[in-house]
Amino acid sequence: MGEAKEKGSLGEQKWRFQGNDVLTTASALTTASALTVRGVLDLIVDNLTKDDPRAVVPLGHGDPSPFPSFRTTAVAEEAVVESLRSANFNCYSSPVGILPARSAIAKHLSKDLPYTLSPDDVFLTVGCTQAIEVVLSVLARPGANVLLPRPGFPFYEARASFINLEVRHFDLLPDRGWDVDLEGVEKLADDNTLAMIIINPGNPCGNVFSYGHLKEVALVAKKLGIMVIADEVYGHLAFGGKPFVPMGVFGSIVPVLTLGAMSKRWIVPGWRLGWLVTTDPNGILKKSGVVESIKGFLNISPDPATFIQGAVPHILEKTKDDFFSRIIGTLKQTADLCYEMIKEIPCISCSSRPEGSMFVMVKLNLSMLEGIKDDIDFCMKLSKEESVIVLPGTAVGMKNWLRVTFAIEPLSLEEGVKRIKSFCERHAMKQ
Amino acid sequence: MGEAKEKGSLGEQKWRFQGNDVLTTASALTTASALTVRGVLDLIVDNLTKDDPRAVVPLGHGDPSPFPSFRTTAVAEEAVVESLRSANFNCYSSPVGILPARSAIAKHLSKDLPYTLSPDDVFLTVGCTQAIEVVLSVLARPGANVLLPRPGFPFYEARASFINLEVRHFDLLPDRGWDVDLEGVEKLADDNTLAMIIINPGNPCGNVFSYGHLKEVALVAKKLGIMVIADEVYGHLAFGGKPFVPMGVFGSIVPVLTLGAMSKRWIVPGWRLGWLVTTDPNGILKKSGVVESIKGFLNISPDPATFIQGAVPHILEKTKDDFFSRIIGTLKQTADLCYEMIKEIPCISCSSRPEGSMFVMVKLNLSMLEGIKDDIDFCMKLSKEESVIVLPGTAVGMKNWLRVTFAIEPLSLEEGVKRIKSFCERHAMKQ
Repeated sequence: MGEAKEKGSLGEQKWRFQGNDVLTTASALTTASALTVRGVLDLIVDNLTKDDPRAVVPLGHGDPSPFPSFRTTAVAEEAVVESLRSANFNCYSSPVGILPARSAIAKHLSKDLPYTLSPDDVFLTVGCTQAIEVVLSVLARPGANVLLPRPGFPFYEARASFINLEVRHFDLLPDRGWDVDLEGVEKLADDNTLAMIIINPGNPCGNVFSYGHLKEVALVAKKLGIMVIADEVYGHLAFGGKPFVPMGVFGSIVPVLTLGAMSKRWIVPGWRLGWLVTTDPNGILKKSGVVESIKGFLNISPDPATFIQGAVPHILEKTKDDFFSRIIGTLKQTADLCYEMIKEIPCISCSSRPEGSMFVMVKLNLSMLEGIKDDIDFCMKLSKEESVIVLPGTAVGMKNWLRVTFAIEPLSLEEGVKRIKSFCERHAMKQ
Repeated sequence: MGEAKEKGSLGEQKWRFQGNDVLTTASALTTASALTVRGVLDLIVDNLTKDDPRAVVPLGHGDPSPFPSFRTTAVAEEAVVESLRSANFNCYSSPVGILPARSAIAKHLSKDLPYTLSPDDVFLTVGCTQAIEVVLSVLARPGANVLLPRPGFPFYEARASFINLEVRHFDLLPDRGWDVDLEGVEKLADDNTLAMIIINPGNPCGNVFSYGHLKEVALVAKKLGIMVIADEVYGHLAFGGKPFVPMGVFGSIVPVLTLGAMSKRWIVPGWRLGWLVTTDPNGILKKSGVVESIKGFLNISPDPATFIQGAVPHILEKTKDDFFSRIIGTLKQTADLCYEMIKEIPCISCSSRPEGSMFVMVKLNLSMLEGIKDDIDFCMKLSKEESVIVLPGTAVGMKNWLRVTFAIEPLSLEEGVKRIKSFCERHAMKQ
């Protein structure tokens, strides 16, 4: 030991974990994480003018939980308190989640399906985020690719880039209510394509896929021999003409991995309770080894807090319809308000009225704006000048669009869109 | 679409995610997950005799939360209830954890260090499990290796195998109270070695490293130019002659990544609240890009539930010493009981009295046993014949040893060790 002790000052010390390869890892991780909504929003927030006396209007988030109109139901809170105080759930969870929670979710989701899910079809995850991590990790292998929607939710791209899973993008079509460009999907797929991902209700588009369109998605996926990963984290948050139809309805046409969570419908994203469900009545995912891989991955991954799992049966059974109606009502009110107000602003436009989720995509008409280079420039200046946070479309794959969240107190939303209007007027091209 | 519809029955359908490569992923994941304690214990539990009227005695776990003597403090439960009911923490967390929780942990850990941690040194994780995942993922790169203790905690090996990080094993020496074989460490390291991992208090050995030994570890790591990853999930659970000394005390000799959690000291593993802390007063981990990589990885990883984070300041400040003393007292009582009773069984032996954590390693003397092939065979038959669950040493890297948990109600422990004694007597070699 004496030798080591005398080896000289810290300044001269060489550490083997220093150097280019470490910095490469750091840089790869930084690139992957900069791709996330969180990463981009941080930049926009950093550009706020500190001494603006007006309150910041946040229209960039996907988390309305801080707003009084979006407070979760007391039923959910009390179920968690009861579960915690029982002291029955301080223990480790099973890697797939505890049985009562999986049973309750199976029963809950089966209500909307033409077949009955078993608890063994359900895997609990640390929010929908981890469900995405699991499905992508299970599919990752050299040469494989998956098809993602554009615009979409960039966490998919970030995770895929970290595990070297190739992604290819199909378009959602603004002129067709953000339906999937199915011809594009067919052209994109090859022998190494394993899955296509859809997000319904849509983030970032605020659209809801019809029964007929989802069936077309299923038939194309079947024709291509790929599974459908249905991200339904905004499931049931539909307030337009079309009801929410889970993709699992078409599970007998094509195997579907359904991702969901309590995060959005119960407005508790911080509770980190999500699920990954095989909606696959023909058992194809089981036969092909996918289910085995999911279990293996979960065995070496963190679990959601056990006492929150313990509250799930109570929450799913006892949450009253009036809570859901109230949230849907508020979302419809704010979506309509947002859509109508944006219609009055000349240099930006919505291609369709939002019918679901918490977002609307808004197109910039740059030719009508002066001194605004692109969507990122728009959002940076809007943040600095008006203390309004909006997500640049680039962050979700659509340059020169914006993603606007309407899930916020109606009065704040009104104030925020008014400020966007002032901003646009001030930057309007002078004729 | 019509074409797809008519493509024939499901039986003929080819799915691109079927086939050997999927099964390879499944099999790799199964192998990785079978390496975990959970995976091995499942096999032992499956071998229980269903109609044994006696209660199962579980001596294989690391989770005493179901036992009344190990109930967590009401202070912690009420802090979580209060945090939840405030509705201030239903939102998403920051990727590194919320500031009040990080500040409280920095303050808490600084009490035992010769320097003061900043909240920026602290990263919250979904239990210590995720902290392990983060550090291994951040170090993984082609050719790199890390040094792990044998016996150890096989989750490290499972995670490393999944991300293709090479591991090499140094020995813990039973004849020297399970101290690290430091000469072995020096022989094992090469230019591609980035870190060595120590677990203190020890899982599975029940040992506590002395101040002097930890300093030797630091000096050897410095000499080798590698960082120390100090898994202190059992931190403060020391009840022998030696006090618990955090590795961070030697952070000015060698950069230390300290892993910890509320799981063991507060007996709430299911709450999934852990941390990863840079105990590195010279800022070497920051300069080398390691901190940047940790942040990048956390940005694309799930977070612990926000309202549990929200309770952390209250829990750390208000938990009374009498709770800690009661738990330490119970652990000392059960450790001594276990050690003394095992001394009376001829064909098994402990090399030293446990002084920390919840485990003791017990050596099998197979030459004194008849019809017992090895440690796995011992545990499988013990499960079947006596309804006692013990972890085979093979699962923690020590063939023909057992890991026995003493963190259980004293009466059950007594019953369990009595049954082990009957089992050994029944299987004793006839002279």
